[in-house]
Amino acid sequence: MTHSDSGVANGANSGQVPQSLHWVGGEDGHLEILDQTLLPGRREHVVCRDVPTVIEAIRMLRVRGAPAIGIAGAYGLVVAAGEALRAGLPPAAARSHVLAQAEDIATARPTAVNLRWAVERSLAVLSTLPAETLPQILAGVLLAEARAIHDEDRHLCAEIGRHGAAVLPEGGVLTHCNTGALATGGDGTALAVITTAWAQGRRFEIFADETRQLLQGARLTAWELCERGIPVTVLVDSAAAHLMKSGRVSSVIVGADRITAGGDVANKIGTYGLAVLAEAHQIPFLVAAPSSTFDLSIVSGDDIPIEERAADEVKRPLGVQAAPEAAAAANPAFDVTPARLVRGIVTEHGVIAPVTRETIAEMLSRQP
Amino acid sequence: MTHSDSGVANGANSGQVPQSLHWVGGEDGHLEILDQTLLPGRREHVVCRDVPTVIEAIRMLRVRGAPAIGIAGAYGLVVAAGEALRAGLPPAAARSHVLAQAEDIATARPTAVNLRWAVERSLAVLSTLPAETLPQILAGVLLAEARAIHDEDRHLCAEIGRHGAAVLPEGGVLTHCNTGALATGGDGTALAVITTAWAQGRRFEIFADETRQLLQGARLTAWELCERGIPVTVLVDSAAAHLMKSGRVSSVIVGADRITAGGDVANKIGTYGLAVLAEAHQIPFLVAAPSSTFDLSIVSGDDIPIEERAADEVKRPLGVQAAPEAAAAANPAFDVTPARLVRGIVTEHGVIAPVTRETIAEMLSRQP
Repeated sequence: MTHSDSGVANGANSGQVPQSLHWVGGEDGHLEILDQTLLPGRREHVVCRDVPTVIEAIRMLRVRGAPAIGIAGAYGLVVAAGEALRAGLPPAAARSHVLAQAEDIATARPTAVNLRWAVERSLAVLSTLPAETLPQILAGVLLAEARAIHDEDRHLCAEIGRHGAAVLPEGGVLTHCNTGALATGGDGTALAVITTAWAQGRRFEIFADETRQLLQGARLTAWELCERGIPVTVLVDSAAAHLMKSGRVSSVIVGADRITAGGDVANKIGTYGLAVLAEAHQIPFLVAAPSSTFDLSIVSGDDIPIEERAADEVKRPLGVQAAPEAAAAANPAFDVTPARLVRGIVTEHGVIAPVTRETIAEMLSRQP
Repeated sequence: MTHSDSGVANGANSGQVPQSLHWVGGEDGHLEILDQTLLPGRREHVVCRDVPTVIEAIRMLRVRGAPAIGIAGAYGLVVAAGEALRAGLPPAAARSHVLAQAEDIATARPTAVNLRWAVERSLAVLSTLPAETLPQILAGVLLAEARAIHDEDRHLCAEIGRHGAAVLPEGGVLTHCNTGALATGGDGTALAVITTAWAQGRRFEIFADETRQLLQGARLTAWELCERGIPVTVLVDSAAAHLMKSGRVSSVIVGADRITAGGDVANKIGTYGLAVLAEAHQIPFLVAAPSSTFDLSIVSGDDIPIEERAADEVKRPLGVQAAPEAAAAANPAFDVTPARLVRGIVTEHGVIAPVTRETIAEMLSRQP
């Protein structure tokens, strides 16, 4: 794995939107993935000139967030075509090589729906090309498709940001986990709402829950905001209630991993507690997610299985032993927030509010 | 500082009550303090044969918890008398030495009320002795007083445990921070309620919030329970809401740093959020604390100042950088839970329930 050091992250404050990944050069270029496992301490890119490097980056969570992983997969096919190009393979062999690598890329993280979706979308375009298509043309077509997928996600984030900023209340806002540029191909979902409102000139306190177990709030959300030059205040998750009571928090906005037809929201552990606390303090609780997050096959959140993750994520924060070996750990990765606690759901089509089965169906029926 | 290694803590499961500190030998003996900063990874005692070692242990939080610190202070005076004894000082010089050292000990942690209280109680006994009292007698009297203070705290913990166990609901119990043997001279306060119920043969799931920022739940509470051979399940603080919703938590019991005349409870950050969540899930929320915790000069919890601690406790969990340097941190050490959310307060005199100004005054008027 080659690392490209882009300077120390701390204090860089470039004012730029951090990018989770980007393509360098033309169809014979390469993919650079920002290594999120090293943030915020080190800002290094994984330089992907071959497919195994792309797969390793996806597998080791150097790139994470469903949309960002999908985009990485699409660019991964261009990397595969580049391998064929440099090896001087004839058209048929080049195509076979890309198809074989595509399967490996698509299964790098088996549960990542977006990854397979993006790879298959690129392969569908590939299948329309004649058999004698030269490797260079093939790589160019795959690059165009990957860029299209990337651009579409960027647009989707922008639309979520725009719709969300229009309804974001005045005053301090609290968010949880990372839902920003690092998780997507654009500005993010919930974090895009916050940064869009900021870009519009509004000023307010931004609170980021550190978000145990993996500290994506402290490590990634705070880093993104610092990079943009936007002030952020990190807190331990259990301090949220006190901040709400103190009047410093006027709204809570989070992302979603899955939303049911009835509007129940599965998201990072801790989200449900925030929603209950927000209600107790009469603070609006908002969710921001693209329409692809809705799973209309499920009505009730009770039917969403909750993944239980490894005990060491609890017992060894940042790799350091905290709890005794003999202690057990409960480590649910997600929780489910019932629709009744959600004031609105921000999608690329607009804001669903109130959140009911009917308003969800109506919004999702709109054409993009 | 001398360390006495008592073996690795992990998996020791002695079934014994861990002791935060103990006196070894007679009036010419020494104090051993369990070094809590090394738990749960290493179980080592600080061997205190001189006063500077005692003071360093208090100052560096090797011993923590208001009652435990007070007891350490009282034993510290015996250590001072032992110094005089071994130096062969005559009666007057020996007494002067103890008085001088007493002041240093009492101010080792200026805000620890129990520390000054315990030191002054021992000095009051000293003042009743004739001027010509031999250093050996002087040390013996101070040792007897320190042991009395220690025994009284042990008794107080036992009474809290007994009263609390009688009202602890059936089913899983969730606690926060460390309120056990490590914080007191006995079995603790809230944790004593849990371990007393367990010792009575009751069986239930025990959940320990890890308790960021300093992880006293994961590091200390889980360790104490493992040492006793009692199963414990650690969770990240933000997972408490999900566990409550899942039905695995039937009660929440915590300690207190200060309780107002009206029953508002100042305690470790995160306590207030738990109380709100407990109410939302109709789960009893209990507080356990000795009557000395009540501050009748304050009626409303709004009048309790909330200490804001160093940002690094949030940004560097266990000393490892998590958030970017440029990020700010909100780090309230405590929060205040209003009396209306507290189902009952367990004291050494009995259980205050419902929690009102009148029921508090009535309970505190009882003779011990």
